Amino acid sequence: MSVTYPKGFQASGTACGIKTNGNLDLAIIASSTGESYPSAATFTQNLAAAASVRLSRSHLDTSLGYTAAVLLSSGNANAATGTKGDADALASANLLAGELGVEVEQILVASTGLIGIPMPIDRLLSGIPLGVKSLGDRDDHGLVAAKALMTTDTFAKVASFEHKGVRFGGIAKGAAMISPNMATMLAVITTDAQADAKSLSDALSQAVDQSFNRITIDGCTSTNDSVFVLASGQSEIDLGQSDLFLGISAICNDLAKQIVFDAEGATKVIFIEVSGAKTVDDAVTIGRKIANSPLVKCSFFGQDPYWGRVLSEVGSAGVALDITRVSISYGDTVVYKDTQECKFDSEHLTKLMSNREIHLGVDVGCGNATATITTADLTPAYIAENMRTS
Amino acid sequence: MSVTYPKGFQASGTACGIKTNGNLDLAIIASSTGESYPSAATFTQNLAAAASVRLSRSHLDTSLGYTAAVLLSSGNANAATGTKGDADALASANLLAGELGVEVEQILVASTGLIGIPMPIDRLLSGIPLGVKSLGDRDDHGLVAAKALMTTDTFAKVASFEHKGVRFGGIAKGAAMISPNMATMLAVITTDAQADAKSLSDALSQAVDQSFNRITIDGCTSTNDSVFVLASGQSEIDLGQSDLFLGISAICNDLAKQIVFDAEGATKVIFIEVSGAKTVDDAVTIGRKIANSPLVKCSFFGQDPYWGRVLSEVGSAGVALDITRVSISYGDTVVYKDTQECKFDSEHLTKLMSNREIHLGVDVGCGNATATITTADLTPAYIAENMRTS
Repeated sequence: MSVTYPKGFQASGTACGIKTNGNLDLAIIASSTGESYPSAATFTQNLAAAASVRLSRSHLDTSLGYTAAVLLSSGNANAATGTKGDADALASANLLAGELGVEVEQILVASTGLIGIPMPIDRLLSGIPLGVKSLGDRDDHGLVAAKALMTTDTFAKVASFEHKGVRFGGIAKGAAMISPNMATMLAVITTDAQADAKSLSDALSQAVDQSFNRITIDGCTSTNDSVFVLASGQSEIDLGQSDLFLGISAICNDLAKQIVFDAEGATKVIFIEVSGAKTVDDAVTIGRKIANSPLVKCSFFGQDPYWGRVLSEVGSAGVALDITRVSISYGDTVVYKDTQECKFDSEHLTKLMSNREIHLGVDVGCGNATATITTADLTPAYIAENMRTS
Repeated sequence: MSVTYPKGFQASGTACGIKTNGNLDLAIIASSTGESYPSAATFTQNLAAAASVRLSRSHLDTSLGYTAAVLLSSGNANAATGTKGDADALASANLLAGELGVEVEQILVASTGLIGIPMPIDRLLSGIPLGVKSLGDRDDHGLVAAKALMTTDTFAKVASFEHKGVRFGGIAKGAAMISPNMATMLAVITTDAQADAKSLSDALSQAVDQSFNRITIDGCTSTNDSVFVLASGQSEIDLGQSDLFLGISAICNDLAKQIVFDAEGATKVIFIEVSGAKTVDDAVTIGRKIANSPLVKCSFFGQDPYWGRVLSEVGSAGVALDITRVSISYGDTVVYKDTQECKFDSEHLTKLMSNREIHLGVDVGCGNATATITTADLTPAYIAENMRTS
């Protein structure tokens, strides 16, 4: 179950030909009443933001956060595509608005795929009417929308959650060029909670910050990252801010974890659990430095508990700390403490390193703040996936 | 020719057994007169600095910059080795000081190799007398010292330069865990210029900042980075500050380039030439962001001119700029300008991408500052080299 789990939403996933192999490449998530819903979004902080990102930002401003539908396409990022890119994004929003009988500002758009190649706009436009006709509110409508987002993803990412009579659902795509800096990748979250745009925006920002912004595959922040949330209000329940956050957060965390599990070429998921920091920001900074280290990532691929590289990343993370207080553990096994290696059961550690999921604990011994950054290993398959675009 | 090219220096490279395969692992660079020389150094900014780094910093302070010899060992980093590590570093300096008949503060030490494993101190100490006996001032003494620094390096890195009657020489080791943050890797530079410790320190800092600090292999800053310079004065020529800088800089640039050429598993050297920046710091920041991007590195390995990834890194480098003014070129071929792809000769570009050395030009169009960051591609061989320590 995903975006059609909450009441008031329809979805579709169709093929318009942006992907020349005929795979699904066009997703629409729409209000099922024709009315616009309160909504919010977070976008990439990349200055080279795609045309779709710039248009959606502008539409959210103009509509005061009221959205009737989100149009998402995969196979072409529509980034670094000049004025034609802007015109193409607008044309697609205009056509969908016409089909749905709403104002163009009530349409949000998102795209993912190769950067710098002009959008095959005729194909995109020709596909929109079928996308609208295909809209429906069954579970499989949400799933097929999730499938239409996929690029190098190996599985469709869907999530659902129920809390105090309110439903939440979501879809996402991930794979590579994944690093946290306000929203990462594409995701659409729906809920039938009663909530205004401001409450949604606050809850989404906080939830994204603690989920998508705490995963990293390769330290690369995409030009197209967008996370949307829409609230139909059809449950007729106003959860209040903290429960609204809880629901959106559950979806974000679920989808974020799936993205790391499906990281390009990865063989392992690594939870880098930083504790004892002065502030959460410090813990996040240290966790990211470790997570983005090619040497650390290689060690995990090799199942080698080379904690020396982890310590070296802690020492060069740019966070002021007393390095002599740092301790490092893999799972339940402390390997480094009090400035030197500990005695440990190396057979147990070897077995632990062979797991698909590994918990790396790093305590920096100078405070009470914690944060977990989730990442993947670096493998020859990642290189194979990314060495050529064609 | 290398560290023994300037007058007044001896060197040796011997095997003491830190490397269990019998390879050279102990280098000594010493004054040939028994007197201490003015000297300076830059060290890693990593908080987890090795015992050798901490001891050398302290000795340079105490000796007011007068140094009789540098003792370098390879195969063990003596980092994260607790109080034993500190005692081991001091014991090795003490023994060499005794052998040479100088104060212990006049000895600098450096080490490179695996982090976190206790130094096999008996082997190191037993090797020092032979290292002293083997000292000599021929070219091959310098070369064998360079060989004794190697870990995963595939060739010994040596450099020499003559300027206005003054000689400069140097040796270095590189390979991986190479990223600029004040001094990177190990290097010893010698000169027969007349210069005091302050002049040497100023010239070295500036030279390192513009050479070793502008190369990056993997964005990882080591625990052991150290660059030393010693001046014998035996040319009896005081070059003045700018020519002293010029000489030291020539050696640093030569050695830095060799380090990138010998990057672990690399197939290409990429010169990322950032221009049009507001400040040199901005240009360096942008260049490093591009250089450390796994996606950009993979594209170079695949010989794929995927400039979209380069633009995405420029946009997420954290430098304020007008992204619409950015242009990107490979060699003489401009591929992106005025917010969109340019027309270019794709056959010519394909040929250019197949070269071992590639010049990536990134003009950000908002000023006159420039900087070149030199890096390597990311290859399956890098992963193979780093996935296991044993």
